[in-house]
Order: sequence, then structure tokens, then C-alpha cells
Amino acid sequence: MIIHVVAFRWKPGIPAGHVEEVQAQLNEFAATLPEVRSYRCGSDVGASDMGNFDFGIVAEFDNVDDWRVYDKHPRHQEIRAGVVRPWIDERAAVQFES
Amino acid sequence: MIIHVVAFRWKPGIPAGHVEEVQAQLNEFAATLPEVRSYRCGSDVGASDMGNFDFGIVAEFDNVDDWRVYDKHPRHQEIRAGVVRPWIDERAAVQFES
Repeated sequence: MIIHVVAFRWKPGIPAGHVEEVQAQLNEFAATLPEVRSYRCGSDVGASDMGNFDFGIVAEFDNVDDWRVYDKHPRHQEIRAGVVRPWIDERAAVQFES
Repeated sequence: MIIHVVAFRWKPGIPAGHVEEVQAQLNEFAATLPEVRSYRCGSDVGASDMGNFDFGIVAEFDNVDDWRVYDKHPRHQEIRAGVVRPWIDERAAVQFES
């Protein structure tokens, strides 16, 4: 199984409502793909004092090809360009096997 | 449920054997804690061309208090200080509810 991990740090001033919109669009998109075994995302709860990022995504795929369907999907590109990328300050991502 | 997400970028020159040692110590530690509902970590598979980090961790906890037991545990601090922190170039972490 491929575990897909992303963390974003948003640019200062991102409206809370915009983060909810990002979350809704990602969840709705992921739910349309049979290749996505599980998909969870959300805002940092503020429990850590170690300089956390602001938003996390964790998804599961059977293999790298399935992850690539999600990664390269036109609707995904649209969400990235439309609501995610304009507000990204920093992005960290990993895909690992488990 | 609290989803705990971490991504590391290692300093250049970290030996592959050292990454395996980090992974083994984290897995062994996490397995000792009843508060940890699931724990997975591993090295990036190299499938992305978007500047990925090198190593990911995804863990699940019932609540923030349980996450804190893991986060603040003396053995965790020991692993961080002993084998993780000396090789961290960048770290991204998020805890989110799902």
C-alpha cells in the first residue's frame, strides 16, 4: 500500500472559510476516485509547540499507479490551481510504502 | 480521531542504513504504546516530481491526550535526540481531526 502524506503551511491571511472550501473540494474529488482507498484531510488542531504546518492530507492507494491517477487527475490540477496553490507558503509531501 | 502527520527532509549524506535504524526505532517504540492506534512510517518512493520530502510518518490516536503521551514520551525524546534530530534538514508536522 502507498501512503500519501502532505502538509501545507498557508500564507498569512488565508480566510478560515477558504480552508473549509479547500477541504470540501479535496474530499469531494477524492470520493469520486475508486483508486483512493481512504482520504482524510484537515487543519492542525494546535496541540503542538514544535512549529507545525497548518493543514494535513493522508491518503491510501494500492500502488503507485493508483496514486498517479489521483495525482495527475484534471480535477485535482483544477483544485490545486484554483484554491490551493494561491495560498501555499510551504508544502511538504511524501509517498511511502507500508 | 487524531491523525498525526510528519514529513522529514534529511540532511545530505544520511546513510541509508541510518534511515532504516530510525524507522526501526520508531516502529518499535510506537508498538509499545497502547495509545497508538496505528503507526506507519517510511521513505519516499520517488514517484513525485514535485520536490518531495524524504521520510513520512502517519499515526492515529483516539484523542489529543493520547497523542501527547506519544509525543512527550521519554523514549520518543531519546529517539529524536539520538538518531532523528541530528539528520533533520526540514520537518513538517500536522495533527488534525478526522
